[in-house]
Amino acid sequence: MRMTRIGIIGGGQLGKMMILDAKRLGYYVVILDPNNHCPAHSIADEHIVAEFDNINAFFELASKVDVITYEFEHINVDALKSLEEKGHSVYPTSNTLSLIQNKYIQKKWLKEAGIPVPNFIAINSINDLEPEKLPFSFPVVLKTCTGGYDGKGNYVIKSPEDIENAYKTLGEGKVPLMLEEFIPFEMEISVLACNDQNRKSILFPIAENIHVNSILDETIVPARIKESMAAKALKVADDVAHQVSSCGMLCIEMFITKDGNVVVNEIAPRPHNSGHYTIEGCYTSQFEQHIRAIVGLPFGNTELIKPTVMKNIIGQINIDKDVEVEGLYEALTGGQVKIHLYEKTSVSIGRKMGHITACDTTIEGALEKVRNAHAKIKFV
Amino acid sequence: MRMTRIGIIGGGQLGKMMILDAKRLGYYVVILDPNNHCPAHSIADEHIVAEFDNINAFFELASKVDVITYEFEHINVDALKSLEEKGHSVYPTSNTLSLIQNKYIQKKWLKEAGIPVPNFIAINSINDLEPEKLPFSFPVVLKTCTGGYDGKGNYVIKSPEDIENAYKTLGEGKVPLMLEEFIPFEMEISVLACNDQNRKSILFPIAENIHVNSILDETIVPARIKESMAAKALKVADDVAHQVSSCGMLCIEMFITKDGNVVVNEIAPRPHNSGHYTIEGCYTSQFEQHIRAIVGLPFGNTELIKPTVMKNIIGQINIDKDVEVEGLYEALTGGQVKIHLYEKTSVSIGRKMGHITACDTTIEGALEKVRNAHAKIKFV
Repeated sequence: MRMTRIGIIGGGQLGKMMILDAKRLGYYVVILDPNNHCPAHSIADEHIVAEFDNINAFFELASKVDVITYEFEHINVDALKSLEEKGHSVYPTSNTLSLIQNKYIQKKWLKEAGIPVPNFIAINSINDLEPEKLPFSFPVVLKTCTGGYDGKGNYVIKSPEDIENAYKTLGEGKVPLMLEEFIPFEMEISVLACNDQNRKSILFPIAENIHVNSILDETIVPARIKESMAAKALKVADDVAHQVSSCGMLCIEMFITKDGNVVVNEIAPRPHNSGHYTIEGCYTSQFEQHIRAIVGLPFGNTELIKPTVMKNIIGQINIDKDVEVEGLYEALTGGQVKIHLYEKTSVSIGRKMGHITACDTTIEGALEKVRNAHAKIKFV
Repeated sequence: MRMTRIGIIGGGQLGKMMILDAKRLGYYVVILDPNNHCPAHSIADEHIVAEFDNINAFFELASKVDVITYEFEHINVDALKSLEEKGHSVYPTSNTLSLIQNKYIQKKWLKEAGIPVPNFIAINSINDLEPEKLPFSFPVVLKTCTGGYDGKGNYVIKSPEDIENAYKTLGEGKVPLMLEEFIPFEMEISVLACNDQNRKSILFPIAENIHVNSILDETIVPARIKESMAAKALKVADDVAHQVSSCGMLCIEMFITKDGNVVVNEIAPRPHNSGHYTIEGCYTSQFEQHIRAIVGLPFGNTELIKPTVMKNIIGQINIDKDVEVEGLYEALTGGQVKIHLYEKTSVSIGRKMGHITACDTTIEGALEKVRNAHAKIKFV
């Protein structure tokens, strides 16, 4: 029996972009999100307005659809497990989410599978942070094991004097913490991968990511790295995809170290900001690929069509309602960029409001185009 | 003041595909359509369920949006005019629609503007069809001046014996009729064009169209014609676009005659089936271009990325509800085609249910791909 109805937990921009591709393929989509004005609201067939910890709402969603997915990983694993126990299809599976959601468990699992990761330890109390006890030297990175994103939940400790402040900032042990060695990287890259329901994987091209204030600013594809390094990175990404095995999109964020190695920074079990370039840059977008995978359709071609650059439109101001965009005319002049706006009604500093993509014969050309367009966009 | 809300009269597949691109750009979209389950229903922000002759509903739509457009041309021109008189923006304008809607008026207007069209006359009664009175020889084409589509409203009269039957079939004069010379064409082509609000035009590449039973079956881009012929066709299309002048997308369907001329068959004031290839084939789709034009944004690049073929998925069977598609897995296997399904709940013979697109390094490759995929799709 063909699956025809898709449930998505979360109605943010990732959910919205999943739906845009799901609707082209004719699917019926129900979302679950507490915000009645979330980006995906208007294009979903149905919207269950409920909190993400409302197990009854999860079951209501399951009753309306053939398969459930999610657009972010901070979801109650037990709730997903209880859906699966009642026979509902959830992709990625609750088991996969349980391995990825907690960064300490994720790293431990990847390391045991032979995937290269930075050195790390669990931090159970401030005593574990005593300099003489640390197995690696400063700088180090203190991280919350759960709930972090866009640099939130990370604290770079440069010297022993930072320890107390770092520990305080990250909740004083109220959320589980871990410590990692700081990787002096040459470049941050990511590979989007997708698994189908038969444990086959497909990779997208390698993306070079530039972060500003720990938030993704630009993605450049193909990444400007040597072929031998690219081969190394694709091998690691492929190994991770096989290790994860659960169906759906996956983002593997990696560092290329100064000594020419590839280590996995973290993975996300979903379409990812660094894969937005695939909408125009690849024959199949990461969103269409995710939809294809979870409903059991074959993969689409992931080839890059042309060098492509994506630049995020990030809030530089706080406006709590009726926010409007200015400069769209100027940004689109020339006809060479595509602008995606997420229809968020409020803006705050650091909030992802949209993104701009350009495809060109050269990376430099595409970079110039997105930057010029980006400079024109303003929220008022 | 930036326009942020778009109204669309008609919620069929053209409306749906307009919305998919409008939502990427962050627009609020209200549709007007009598069918509560029309293809665009679920992705519109609001849906006014009303008949297309309900003038109050037109004004309700106008009250909710900044600009109004439409996805088909069989709309009451006076109703659009009354919206304009109250200060509402309607694109294309009612004046443009009044010149295009009636095929006799359209041809007369194009001819007077120096655009090459087949010879034609108005038919006011069956007496006008007396063979000795006709200014051109058999075969000839009797057409209803309004309301025709997909071959409906056309009758090829091969010899005098067909006249009575043709006249009867097309309503015996109840709708206005016209007669045209039959053009023995080498090829049917179309050019999608767009006008902005400052009377500037942009053209898409030339599409070669193959009809089966008078319904578009395949569109091949670039059209397989000589460069000199392409230049001629683009010149005619450009002339038509300037003649129309009103803002928005426009389809110019043309014949390439056996003696190497280009004549305009008909024009449509909207995105068109023969422009669906632009979704994957061009940097900017015809739908995004239409949205950009009517809200006053600059044109996007219309270049063809790769040779592209579009094949319609047309109903071969009648099923009046709960229709399901079969063969999607098989059709998508190989990852080289994109399938668009319009979410129609019933199918009938000749109904457009979806389309398949492939981009490839060669036209032959793309043709093979869409045909193989198409052979797998079935409605049950």
